[in-house]
Formats: sequence, C-alpha cells, structure tokens
Amino acid sequence: MLGLIQDRPLLISSLIEYSGLNHGDVEIVSRSVEGPIHRTNYRQVNARAKKLAQALGRLGVEMGDRIGTIAWNGYRHIEIYYGVSGMGSVCHTINPRLFPEQIAYIVNHAEDKYIFVDLTFIPLIEALAEHLGNVKGFIVMTDEAHMPESKLDNLLCYETLIDGSDDSYSWPDFDEKTASSLCYTSGTTGNPKGVLYTNRSTVLHSFGVCAQDGLGISNQDSILAVVPMFHANAWGLVYAAAMSGAKMVMPGAAMDGASIYELMEAEEVTVSAGVPTIWMMLLAHVKENNLKFSSMKRTVIGGSAAARTMISTFVEDYGVNVVHAWGMTETSPIGTTGNLLKKHADLPESERIDIRTKQGRIVYGVELKITDDDNNELPRDGVAFGDLKVRGPWITSGYFKGEGGDTLDEDGWFSTGDVGTLDADGYMQITDRSKDVIKSGGEWISSIDVENEAIGCPGIVEAAVIAIPHPKWDERPLVIAVKEQGHGVTAEDVIAHLESTLAKWQLPDDVVFVDELPHTATGKLLKTKLREDFKDYVLKSA
Amino acid sequence: MLGLIQDRPLLISSLIEYSGLNHGDVEIVSRSVEGPIHRTNYRQVNARAKKLAQALGRLGVEMGDRIGTIAWNGYRHIEIYYGVSGMGSVCHTINPRLFPEQIAYIVNHAEDKYIFVDLTFIPLIEALAEHLGNVKGFIVMTDEAHMPESKLDNLLCYETLIDGSDDSYSWPDFDEKTASSLCYTSGTTGNPKGVLYTNRSTVLHSFGVCAQDGLGISNQDSILAVVPMFHANAWGLVYAAAMSGAKMVMPGAAMDGASIYELMEAEEVTVSAGVPTIWMMLLAHVKENNLKFSSMKRTVIGGSAAARTMISTFVEDYGVNVVHAWGMTETSPIGTTGNLLKKHADLPESERIDIRTKQGRIVYGVELKITDDDNNELPRDGVAFGDLKVRGPWITSGYFKGEGGDTLDEDGWFSTGDVGTLDADGYMQITDRSKDVIKSGGEWISSIDVENEAIGCPGIVEAAVIAIPHPKWDERPLVIAVKEQGHGVTAEDVIAHLESTLAKWQLPDDVVFVDELPHTATGKLLKTKLREDFKDYVLKSA
Ligand SMILES: Nc1ncnc2c1ncn2[C@@H]1O[C@H](COP(=O)(O)OP(=O)(O)OP(=O)(O)O)[C@@H](O)[C@H]1O
Ligand SMILES: Nc1ncnc2c1ncn2[C@@H]1O[C@H](COP(=O)(O)OP(=O)(O)OP(=O)(O)O)[C@@H](O)[C@H]1O
Ligand SMILES: [Mg+2]
Ligand SMILES: [Mg+2]
Repeated sequence: MLGLIQDRPLLISSLIEYSGLNHGDVEIVSRSVEGPIHRTNYRQVNARAKKLAQALGRLGVEMGDRIGTIAWNGYRHIEIYYGVSGMGSVCHTINPRLFPEQIAYIVNHAEDKYIFVDLTFIPLIEALAEHLGNVKGFIVMTDEAHMPESKLDNLLCYETLIDGSDDSYSWPDFDEKTASSLCYTSGTTGNPKGVLYTNRSTVLHSFGVCAQDGLGISNQDSILAVVPMFHANAWGLVYAAAMSGAKMVMPGAAMDGASIYELMEAEEVTVSAGVPTIWMMLLAHVKENNLKFSSMKRTVIGGSAAARTMISTFVEDYGVNVVHAWGMTETSPIGTTGNLLKKHADLPESERIDIRTKQGRIVYGVELKITDDDNNELPRDGVAFGDLKVRGPWITSGYFKGEGGDTLDEDGWFSTGDVGTLDADGYMQITDRSKDVIKSGGEWISSIDVENEAIGCPGIVEAAVIAIPHPKWDERPLVIAVKEQGHGVTAEDVIAHLESTLAKWQLPDDVVFVDELPHTATGKLLKTKLREDFKDYVLKSA
Repeated sequence: MLGLIQDRPLLISSLIEYSGLNHGDVEIVSRSVEGPIHRTNYRQVNARAKKLAQALGRLGVEMGDRIGTIAWNGYRHIEIYYGVSGMGSVCHTINPRLFPEQIAYIVNHAEDKYIFVDLTFIPLIEALAEHLGNVKGFIVMTDEAHMPESKLDNLLCYETLIDGSDDSYSWPDFDEKTASSLCYTSGTTGNPKGVLYTNRSTVLHSFGVCAQDGLGISNQDSILAVVPMFHANAWGLVYAAAMSGAKMVMPGAAMDGASIYELMEAEEVTVSAGVPTIWMMLLAHVKENNLKFSSMKRTVIGGSAAARTMISTFVEDYGVNVVHAWGMTETSPIGTTGNLLKKHADLPESERIDIRTKQGRIVYGVELKITDDDNNELPRDGVAFGDLKVRGPWITSGYFKGEGGDTLDEDGWFSTGDVGTLDADGYMQITDRSKDVIKSGGEWISSIDVENEAIGCPGIVEAAVIAIPHPKWDERPLVIAVKEQGHGVTAEDVIAHLESTLAKWQLPDDVVFVDELPHTATGKLLKTKLREDFKDYVLKSA
C-alpha cells in the first residue's frame, strides 16, 4: 500500500528557489576573473539563473543536452549550475588543468552542445576549438566590455545573453531522476570516466553535506569553496549552501595561500574545503607571515589523505577543527566525514587527532562495507582491511555511455578501488588503492604508509611508492623520491629513516631520486605514469 | 535523460540500521511503565526491531497491514516504530487521551490488525475490546513476569514474541512510497482524520529535522522526547535521533514537571520538544524549587502558539534557547522552525525574542505561501496575512480512505486552515485558524490575539475567544474565561484591561465566565465545543 503524501520531485532548482525566497539577501562574494571583488545574493542568483535557463532555451538547448563549463569558482558558475540543471539539462564541469587532449576527449565524449568559459580559458578554447566540432558555441562568462578579441566566430557574451531574458521564467517540474550534472573522474588510475548525477541524488547528497555529522553547513556559515566547482561539484558545497542559506565566498583564479587567506579574513569565513596541497600552501603562508585565523572554525580536507601533521597544525597551532573526508567523483562525493563523537570529548588532544587522521565516519545515506577477495564481508573492527564497497542513493550505478561496463555487483554494491578498515563507530581508514597496494609474499604493504614515512625523512620533499615485480616475493616496494634543492640525502638515509617505523618486510628494496613526480589534474600522484616509466626497472634484490 | 545513480529506496529501516551499525553503543534511556529506568542502545534496538518484524510475520502480518500502538514514549515503542514500518506494514499510533468512542472510531477506521499496548492502557482496552471486532490481538509491551490478569483472551506478551525470533532477519527493500505510518489529527476542528506517511516522506522529513536550521539534531545531543510518540510521530525526533546517532531519553508515563526535570538533569539532556502546556508545568516546577538547567541548550515548542513570556523565561531566566515551531499532523509535522539568522546575532535580546515569538522559518523541503480568498498569492512582507498553503515531499496529499475529499488545489498546494503572514526571511507568523477568525465588518480579528491579551488580565487563568453572529457587523468576539480560584475579576475588568492593547473595534462585546474550558486530547482549546455550547448566545450589543 502506498502512502498519501504529495508527489513532489527532489529538484536542484528547489535549492536556489528556497534561498532566493528565504535567504534573499545572503551574500555570494566572488573574486572575479576581470579583477575586483563582486558581491551578489541569493535573490539575484536565483533570478539570473532563471534568466539563463530562459536564454539557453532560446539557443535551442533542450532537456538532457550536455552544457560544458570551463571555469573557476565564481557567482556566474553558480548561476550556470542552477540554470542548466534547473531546466533539466546537464551541467558538465570540465577540469581545465587536464591535458588538452583529455579535455578534447571529454568534451567530445560528453557531446557538449555549448560550453561556458571564463576569460582565462579563451586561449585554451582557441587552441582546442578545431577538435570540438560538435560544440555550437562558447559562452564567455563576462560582459560586453570585457569580451575578448578572438579568431573564434562562435563566442557569445554571458551578460548579453541574460539581458535578453525577462522575469517570466519559473522552474519546471520533471522526474527527479533526470540527469543534472556530469563530472569525469580525475584520471588517476586510467582515463577519466563520466559520472552522471541526478536531481534527486544531488538534493539527497546536500542533506548529507548539511547534516552536522556531514559538513555541518548552516546559515551561520560563511563558506570558502576552495575545492573547484569542476571537481566533483565542489564537494556539494554550492548546493548545501543554498539549502541552508549560508554565505558563499568564491576564490576565482587566485588559489595561492596569500589570496585564500585574505578572503578568509575579509569575508569572515567559518568553513572551507579543499585538497591537502592547497592547505599546505595556505599553512606555509600563514606560518611565514605569523598570521592567525580570526573566524575560521573548521576546514574540510579530502581528495587525498591528510597527513597527521597537517591536521595537528590546524587544530593545535591555529584552533581550526579539521574534518577529514573521503569520497570519490562516483559518490557525489561525500562518503565519510571525520567528525568526533560525543564520547571523544574528554580524550587527550593527541588521541582526538589520531581519530581525525582516519578518513572519517560513514554519513547517513551511504552504506560502506569491506570484503575479502571472495566478496565475504569482513568485520568492522578497525583492524581487518579489504576492498571498500559502497551503496546508496547518491552513489553511481555506472559510467556515462557504459564505459567500464557493469560496475555494481548483484546486491547493488559499487567497488571503490580503495582498500580500508571500518570500525564499530563507523570510522573508515584508507589503507591504499587496490591498484597501488604492494603484494609481497602474501602480505600487503600499503604504498601510502611508506610514502608518508618517507616524506618524514629530512631532505625528502615528495615520495611515491610503487610495486616492482620480484622473483621470490612477487612484488617489492620501490621509493621514487624528490630531494630538497641541494640536499645530500641518499637512498641509504631514506631506508635508515624508515627502519625506525616500518617492519623489516615493509622496507623498500630501493630508493631512486627524480627531479619531479607526475601528478593528475587534481594534484594526485600519477602512479600509472610511474609504473610505465619504471616498467623495466630491476631491483637490486631481484 | 535519466542520470546514472543507484536506485536505492529511502526506507525507515535504513535509519535504525545506520545507527545500529555506526552508533551501536549510543544509549536509549526510558522510564519504564513497570517502574525502573531502562537502558538500551541502537545496536540492541535495531536487533530487537528486526526480531519484532520477524515475529509479526509469524502472526500473519503482511505489508500494508495497519498495526496500532497505545503507548507512552519508551524503547519498546521505538522498536515498534522500526519493526512495523521496516517490514512494510503501517504503524498506527493512537492517542490514549482521546475519548473512548474516538479511539474505537479510529481503530475501526484504520482496521488495525494488532494493537501494541502499554500496561497502563489494559483497562482502556478491556473496556473497548467489544467494539474493536477486527483486532486479532493485543500485544502487551512487557515481559511474562509483568503480564496482567485480564478477562481478554487475546493478549500476547511482547518479550515472549521477540524471544521466538532468531537473528536471521534482514530489512527488506521495497518501494520508498510504501505507507509507513498512520496518525490521526488532533480533532480540534472536527473528527480526527488519518494522515498516511510514507517511508520516503519520513526519511526526507528526518533530514529536515536534523538540519541545523530545522531542529539541529546531531550525535552530540541527548534528546528528551516529551512530545508523545502518538502525536505526529513525536515530531520526527525518533527518526532524526537514529539518523544522527543522538542519545534518546523517553519519559514513559511520568509527564509532570518534577519527573521531566529529573530526567533532564540525570541524562544530560541537551534538547527537548513539546507543547506549551508541558513547558508551563516544567517552568512552574523549576521556579518553585529554585532550580536551573545544567545541560539543556534548547527546547522546541509547538502544537499551539508559545507565549512571548514563556519564550523569554526560558531564554532570559534559564539560558535555554527556544525553537518555536509550527506544523500539523498533515506536514509530518515540521513546517517552520524558529531559529535566528546570522544577521540577528547583534540585536538586543528583546528583539531576538520578538523574532522567536513568530512561528519560525520555512524549513528547506517545505514550500509555504499565503493567499487571499481568490487564491492570489499575497506578498511576503510580514504584514499581509492570508490562508496558509503548503507543498512538499513530506506534506499529505489526502486523508486515509479519502475522508475530507480532495485536499490539494490544481497546483498541488494543501490548505492548512491556518491564517498567517510570511516575511522576506521566510519567517511565518500564525494569525489564527481560518475557522476561528472573527470577521467583523469586513475586518478580521484574530481570536488568538485577544486570548493572549485576556490571559494577561489579573485574575484570568485561561481564555477562549469565539465569534458570535451580529446583525450589523456579521460577527463580534465573545471572551469565555476561567477565573483564578476566588478572584473577583469582572467582565468590565477584562475589557478595561484589553483597552490598553487592542484597537477599539477588536474589543470583545462580552465576557462570560465558566469553571472550565474544553480541550482536545492534545491540550488545545476545543472551540467547536464552545461554539456548540454558545450557539444561542445573544450579545448585549446585538
Ligand atoms: N581522505 C582521503 N584519503 C585518502 N584517499 C582519498 C581521500 N579522499 C579521496 N581519496 C582518493 O581519491 C579517490 C577519488 O578521487 P577522484 O574521484 O577525484 O578520482 P580518482 O580516483 O583520483 O581518478 P580515477 O578514478 O579516474 O582513477 C578515492 O577513490 C580515493 O582513492
Ligand atoms: N507554533 C504554533 N503556533 C500556533 N498554532 C500552532 C503551532 N503549531 C501548531 N499549531 C496549530 O496546530 C495545528 C495542527 O495540529 P494537529 O495536526 O495536531 O491537529 P489539529 O489541527 O489541532 O486538529 P484537527 O486538524 O483534527 O482539527 C495547526 O494547523 C495550527 O493551527
Ligand atoms: Mg577513482
Ligand atoms: Mg488540523
């Protein structure tokens, strides 16, 4: 028997309509690409997003069409998020840091009809345009006064487009499972694959982000979205902010420590989110200049593991809470968030930091389990580790256009490719990626563990650990490291350093030095490239 | 185009499964009907709810069957909430304070197959049993040792039933729109009508309750559910607690000020929720005994309007925040909640209390509008008032068995029967119920306003205001009041008192005194009865 409740769809447009009506004068502050700080509010963003939707209709955009963006975090990008998804089309955010060939591959794979571009990326588009045959036009996110000179003849001006609309547009109703946005994975383990979110999944995910045990977003917050809007929907912050009426602060193109810090202070930012690399830059800036944070309450760190030292620096030196979070493009992305429980209140700070170093607790809405090679569930005891599987209403069911084939097992679980532990409080700890784990004589060595220890060796700036085939042990670890400029650290020094914390069988067999390590567009170590580069490497021990 | 996201239903069982797995040792503390305080936790409640579902299956209960409860707030009632809805049946909570005939009407209308009863209500059931022909059995919420002597031959023992189950039951998957629970309205304006919730509506409503701008429930909370579980799902607290892993404290049958206060202190309660009457009793107790609250952070007041003095007493005298909330059985029930916005932080306390006196802000997920008699939307300016309409994924679409006919207009809006204002920040203020408003010479007089002012007159304990027909003005207000024991207050005194705050045309034409005013089972003024009693009353002014 079905219940008797209104059949209202969960639509992305309801988020901005809500804030437009009920938090109309809450600010959205952006560092614009054109230069100055720009201030708008939810009332205006909702009104302009509707005008944009109306304008796209005039351009012939239909429900289901993919519309690309190559843009920084800013208010126009927010308007595009709502305008495109709100009319039932698909907002496809593109990472401009990808290699140009990857960008062309993604745009063509997605079959983007139009692409919104920030001024910064006009040269990129000009270089690529001939490979993007299906794109009808590029909408430059600026006003007439700032329109660039360009050899391209299909450039449109964003503000002119909007000016052509009136106030008559209302958000349409449609099936909540309608595709809303498309985001490709980072390409760390292979070619980027498209994840196609729905209106429903986005609204549900926003509830998870807003939950106090998620990222705890409320109208008391001023949110600095450091994580780019082209990276897994800026971790849902844009939607969560509208759901809760939080102030938004958008950094635009200026992602250096000084610029980020300046915004935090000027806009009384209470919460921020980003990958570890960004926080390293910020902390360096703050330390060098002897600064402190006057409004920041917490920062969300994810995308790669946050090192214990980074967490303790934030918490102990600056009084900023750290929420360590794990997620994937495939999980919208929030899966686990590292808040402490009530029972942790009286623990010594160092134990509290140990807990924060884990990847966080399972958020309601997400189911996680770990399994062995035969898909048997392993205990949630914080010790057993296995393949991490995930299920839930904001988790992917398969990639765009069927790439990668069937991704769910018969009970509907998605295999993350990560290996980790779970405990009785729902905390998850990533051990490694399953492709990166080193299988040595039946035991597993976590490449992440060895990397983290190696970085602690004086003279080492960055380190990657990969598996090299070994006749006796199957695989053994190789450390590939970058030295501090002019430092005389040797392979023996590194191994000697590791001996103090690692078990003997976990010690790397060799250490080689390189000038630079390869990274993905989101700043992660690109181990596929390293494995390719070192595929003929023979260990001394072999 | 549909997106590619897992098709996971939003089920009530996922709430308790989540906390059972991830907040397993968080406590649920109950004052038991048998006597002592009882302590359990989410792990056990989840396990026992599954056993209960298995046991109901053995009794022949099927998906869609209605299963009644006549019970206080306690852990077994929580297990029933999850066990019944989790298996796809419908948990029908019955208000034991209704008149026996109303109870019989409701049970038969719902066609309850089994009814769970607390020991307290055995005499009630014995008296009613002969009128409840369709009920197969009554499951007494106790163990064998406490089973009552009874003339009824279809009493089952709760603990024995559960003991007959093993650990093999898993929560089934089914359509998220499956009916989960049935709750009848309070019967203030007519016969109680059944609202049939769904699994989906309950999960979505729980997100709204957990939101910081809703009731802000998190695992840091210890929640005292004073609002009964038979009154609009205890305002969703049971579900929100499981969603967030909050500790639950259940008062059982002891609802007096002293017992409530004792639990608050002993269980370090941080948040509580209930109707104004309960808080009046609690505040009287606390004042008389010169006590203070050591852990309470906020209290939720709703169901009827919270008086300004009650709010200011909590906030100013006791440092307890008040969240004034409005809702209806038909709205699951949360519609608006009275949290302050960031921009209110620096206002003087008295202005902050003015804001809290409104019925609260629109919660994301709920759409509210006010309309005139021709269904034109009125401005959200905090001044214009009109019929309050509501829409959203946890709002009723119609009553059980079609009572009351079509309830939605063509755009899907439900008419609340309340009259109020909305403002640009989403705050709503109830002016009156549309049936209670006094229409005098084209102007509307709020019966609530006049009542609130009349209560302020020395010597008046309680007052109700109803409309009496008038040849010239259509309707004029009559005050029906209860005097303080032995007080000599007169009708002239009351009118003189009102002259200081009300406009001349709002003044009541007469004041009559009665020994007692009629109330509904949830403690609201029963104006239908008053209108009946005074239907032949002739105003002196007529
Ligand atoms: N807090 C964290 N700690 C450790 N690893 C993390 C954390 N957060 C995310 N990750 C890693 O990032 C992955 C998700 O990243 P993303 O979706 O951006 O693409 P990718 O997996 O790096 O690229 P691709 O899937 O294309 O190979 C996770 O599977 C996990 O390996
Ligand atoms: N904070 C509040 N201030 C004023 N009135 C409130 C408040 N909260 C709820 N109410 C009133 O309570 C009503 C909802 O109550 P409920 O669903 O328990 O049944 P009822 O409306 O009293 O009874 P019935 O619908 O059977 O006549 C609302 O429509 C509103 O009139
Ligand atoms: Mg990946
Ligand atoms: Mg009602």
